[in-house]
Amino acid sequence: MSDYIAPIKDMRFVMDELAGFKELSQFAAFEEATPDVADAVLEEAAKFATGVLSPLNRIGDVEGARLTPVGVATAPGWKQAYQAFCAAGWNGLSAPVEFGGQGLPDTLGIATREMVCSANLSFSLGPLLTTGAVSALLTCASDELKAIYLEKMISGAWTGTMNLTEPQAGSDLALIRARAEPDVDGAYRVFGQKIFITYGDHDMTDNIVHLVLARLPDAPAGVKGISMFLVPKFLVNADGSLGARNDAYCVSLEHKLGIHASPTCVMAFGDAGTFGGGAIGYLLGQPNRGLEYMFIMMNEARLGVGLQGIAIAERSYQQALGYARERKQGRDAVTGEALVTLDKHPDIRRMLMLMKCRIEACRAMAYFTSGQLDRAHAVTDPEEKKRHLFLAEFMIPIVKGGGTEMGIEVTSLGIQIWGGMGFIEETGAAQHWRDSRITTIYEGTTGIQANDLLFRKLMRDQGATAKVVFGEVFAIVKALGASGKPELQGIGQRLGLALEAWTQASEWLAANAKNSLSGVLSAAVPYLHLAVTVCGGWFMGKAALAASGHIDAGEGDTAFYRAKIASACFYADQMLPQATAYGETVRAGDRALLGMGDELFMN
Amino acid sequence: MSDYIAPIKDMRFVMDELAGFKELSQFAAFEEATPDVADAVLEEAAKFATGVLSPLNRIGDVEGARLTPVGVATAPGWKQAYQAFCAAGWNGLSAPVEFGGQGLPDTLGIATREMVCSANLSFSLGPLLTTGAVSALLTCASDELKAIYLEKMISGAWTGTMNLTEPQAGSDLALIRARAEPDVDGAYRVFGQKIFITYGDHDMTDNIVHLVLARLPDAPAGVKGISMFLVPKFLVNADGSLGARNDAYCVSLEHKLGIHASPTCVMAFGDAGTFGGGAIGYLLGQPNRGLEYMFIMMNEARLGVGLQGIAIAERSYQQALGYARERKQGRDAVTGEALVTLDKHPDIRRMLMLMKCRIEACRAMAYFTSGQLDRAHAVTDPEEKKRHLFLAEFMIPIVKGGGTEMGIEVTSLGIQIWGGMGFIEETGAAQHWRDSRITTIYEGTTGIQANDLLFRKLMRDQGATAKVVFGEVFAIVKALGASGKPELQGIGQRLGLALEAWTQASEWLAANAKNSLSGVLSAAVPYLHLAVTVCGGWFMGKAALAASGHIDAGEGDTAFYRAKIASACFYADQMLPQATAYGETVRAGDRALLGMGDELFMN
Repeated sequence: MSDYIAPIKDMRFVMDELAGFKELSQFAAFEEATPDVADAVLEEAAKFATGVLSPLNRIGDVEGARLTPVGVATAPGWKQAYQAFCAAGWNGLSAPVEFGGQGLPDTLGIATREMVCSANLSFSLGPLLTTGAVSALLTCASDELKAIYLEKMISGAWTGTMNLTEPQAGSDLALIRARAEPDVDGAYRVFGQKIFITYGDHDMTDNIVHLVLARLPDAPAGVKGISMFLVPKFLVNADGSLGARNDAYCVSLEHKLGIHASPTCVMAFGDAGTFGGGAIGYLLGQPNRGLEYMFIMMNEARLGVGLQGIAIAERSYQQALGYARERKQGRDAVTGEALVTLDKHPDIRRMLMLMKCRIEACRAMAYFTSGQLDRAHAVTDPEEKKRHLFLAEFMIPIVKGGGTEMGIEVTSLGIQIWGGMGFIEETGAAQHWRDSRITTIYEGTTGIQANDLLFRKLMRDQGATAKVVFGEVFAIVKALGASGKPELQGIGQRLGLALEAWTQASEWLAANAKNSLSGVLSAAVPYLHLAVTVCGGWFMGKAALAASGHIDAGEGDTAFYRAKIASACFYADQMLPQATAYGETVRAGDRALLGMGDELFMN
Repeated sequence: MSDYIAPIKDMRFVMDELAGFKELSQFAAFEEATPDVADAVLEEAAKFATGVLSPLNRIGDVEGARLTPVGVATAPGWKQAYQAFCAAGWNGLSAPVEFGGQGLPDTLGIATREMVCSANLSFSLGPLLTTGAVSALLTCASDELKAIYLEKMISGAWTGTMNLTEPQAGSDLALIRARAEPDVDGAYRVFGQKIFITYGDHDMTDNIVHLVLARLPDAPAGVKGISMFLVPKFLVNADGSLGARNDAYCVSLEHKLGIHASPTCVMAFGDAGTFGGGAIGYLLGQPNRGLEYMFIMMNEARLGVGLQGIAIAERSYQQALGYARERKQGRDAVTGEALVTLDKHPDIRRMLMLMKCRIEACRAMAYFTSGQLDRAHAVTDPEEKKRHLFLAEFMIPIVKGGGTEMGIEVTSLGIQIWGGMGFIEETGAAQHWRDSRITTIYEGTTGIQANDLLFRKLMRDQGATAKVVFGEVFAIVKALGASGKPELQGIGQRLGLALEAWTQASEWLAANAKNSLSGVLSAAVPYLHLAVTVCGGWFMGKAALAASGHIDAGEGDTAFYRAKIASACFYADQMLPQATAYGETVRAGDRALLGMGDELFMN
């Protein structure tokens, strides 16, 4: 085990050079977001993550959350840490000032959230869900509901949950059966069981605000008949004080592979009958538009889950690096020096660098996406707003799919560097790998991200946003080529080939979407991997150019910039060649399986 | 959870068509190994795996092994299952008849061992270690020790262990400190602590035979001063009855990520002082040649661990397939049919097929290797013997590295197919992934396999064995091309490109081994992945040719053979393009990192 130290230097580099943070303070909405404010926020967040959250991470894994007769008890230290988290204002950093938030850009917020996720993934999930619920309320709640709930949720005094999944309805929300019946005073009675509800119950706050998908009587079947309801754990009186306990209970906790300290609840709504049947709920927005509202939360949550993959990989990297620098084993193969530390062995160095460059590439994608969301929020011209929003939305499945798959692979490398010790739970290396495993599943599996990228993000504007991205990547290819520096030109060459693979694959998909749908669907995940690989190269190339510029100008920390260039070159050599392979796979579609039925799987 | 059903059809196909099992009965050593015997053995082994071992797998995960005041207690049912295993003769299937074994070929034995590993990986480790210890005794034990120990170990009445690792000596065995002092009657007193000792203690048998690496007084430093000792848990009297309890105790058990039911012991030798200091041990073979003998066990154990990766992947595949065929979710994207099972969704089918084809490819490599070991054993001509042995030894790091890395990735796909349910421990999908994670670490990490392939297997004969393999692959490329069948030609085309990448990478390594050692060492693992990818294609191509031949001849189960061809085509489209990418990475070496020191890792 080792302390988590926030990688502020890289975060700041990514914010400034790749995500356009510096320019944000020019917008009226973000005029407070000066470099000094950013410095102060990052430093404080880093202290909190290292000092408060990180030491609880293993305790949470070992103790987990428990279901008691009075509800879910979180792991020791959780409640105090959460209260300190809220008191320091971390919950509402990027939330609107109007409801008590600090209104700072998400490009800064994402760095603080990365720290929280690195330090303690299980802890981070409560605030993540609350933030999502806040977004949904901002979008569709009545002014009355906003007045009652938003300030409390933005401060973190009350947490939020998302109640989608039911035993028969996972990825397919059309199958949702939970129902709501109109009650007196415009309220509703909500009935049904929901599973996999993160922080569905806990002891950290005195109220919990459940957002629940359910069907109104006579609602159309399928996804067009789903409405969203707000169901508080405790009803709220007109004066804001808490009233009766609502009929919304956690009836069991899941025994999970990882994130043990994050309570995953089976929630029963209206089952106890304490109000004569049904939990009291309030309709959010229009009837039958619940799925649409839920997707507002979902997009943010997906960016947040992509960030989790990055954050947990960073933690694993730091821990593996710490061990590799301490543990002596074997002779230096090159110098012959006896008994050197692991980091002197070329294969260990390869693994550490692979971890590092993949994390950096994904971090850049995620922060860039926040930068686009901030611009979509801050600009006033509707066309420009739409452009930034579409770009952010294009990137979200790439960040979610790419960050989480990377997180699993990188935390596995972390174990590998620890060797046999990595398989022993006490070292903590295994926890990161276990914790990471949920991230490619929740908030939409990798397959769902891939379909989203393909059928919504790529095709909805006939590839217009994709072409903007291709253009950005091509500009980097050209700049690298024109740099006159062999190492940058080498990156440029590989990035150019990778981009070609991406554009060709995109053309193949567009050409086959109608006539070979099963082939296109089979190609979706390889296509996502291809997009992730190239986007990683885009930002690593851009980073290398920026670093090289600073070295030439004699500015800043030369060693850091040299390492940044080395990391980009390493990414180019290790990761970019895979783009061509993914492109080949995409363009093969499912031709190998055509005409085959169940006999495919016989053995 | 689901029952394990042994994939006898594919096993038999691989044995007969790819590993040359049918021809083995022509050798005097294997004249009993007729097709009928093979059928009977496979059928019985399958019954045992399904009926006895598979139901204990989750119990073992939940209950684990426990350290009690009288030693290690295995999980409920373990002892009875082990006794039934031995009574049925599974332990000595491929062991010499002279010592009570059945002398059947390893090409048959490996299929039965795969079943045991699939059914219950934790259980399989005891017999695996015993078999390794038997091999070491056969190689270097005196006739007296052989007479006392071998029959008991081959029947399974006593189990064996390998005691290599110490806290400071993991991958680097030069650092071993355990020591042995000469005692009376040619015996020795052994002192020291060993860690990560699999089945170092248990309650399944009345004796345990520890093979322990230790240093004699005045032994040279490093790996050339290590000797091997046999240290029984209970001393054995001249009449074969058990004598006093030796001073060899399990002092603690590790709390591990997976294989909970396999006791991983910290062993203390000579620490209790019950014999006035030291555990009684017997020197095996010559002084200071212990590492050499240990590597005899190691090679077999590595093939066995590669097999574990394959076996656990098979179990995960079966379980995911079972779930995908049951669980209804979503509309069929192509036909529009409402609410279909998961296996009808193209991305799920992609994952299932990826699991299947990767398992088949690795199974073929492993069984082929057993086929070569059998030939090395059975032929009499020394040159021919050496050729088969070198070929087997060339394949072993490929099977070990490839099978285990594949196992982790495929069991992760298994979880992915289960979706959120995969993250819940009760379903059992997560156990396979956790269990698999040790396989790339123990018996030599993937990095060590890669170095073994590169510096021992590839370079020891100046690439002669590699050229034999390249020639075999090229013959398949040609045969596929000459088949006149587009789907086979498609495989041949991709395999040809992949082979080209492998030969080019091999040439680059040979050319740079002297002048750019750190680059070559950095390229070792990507080179291993490249070799695995191409060898997989070799056997899948060969399988497709064989299947196609049977279809043309109107022999056998056409649906099975068609599925085999589809699986090979799928492997070609999904996996073979990666060979070129690995080749690019190999030939980049570590150029990105040259001239960089610790600043590489700063952030």
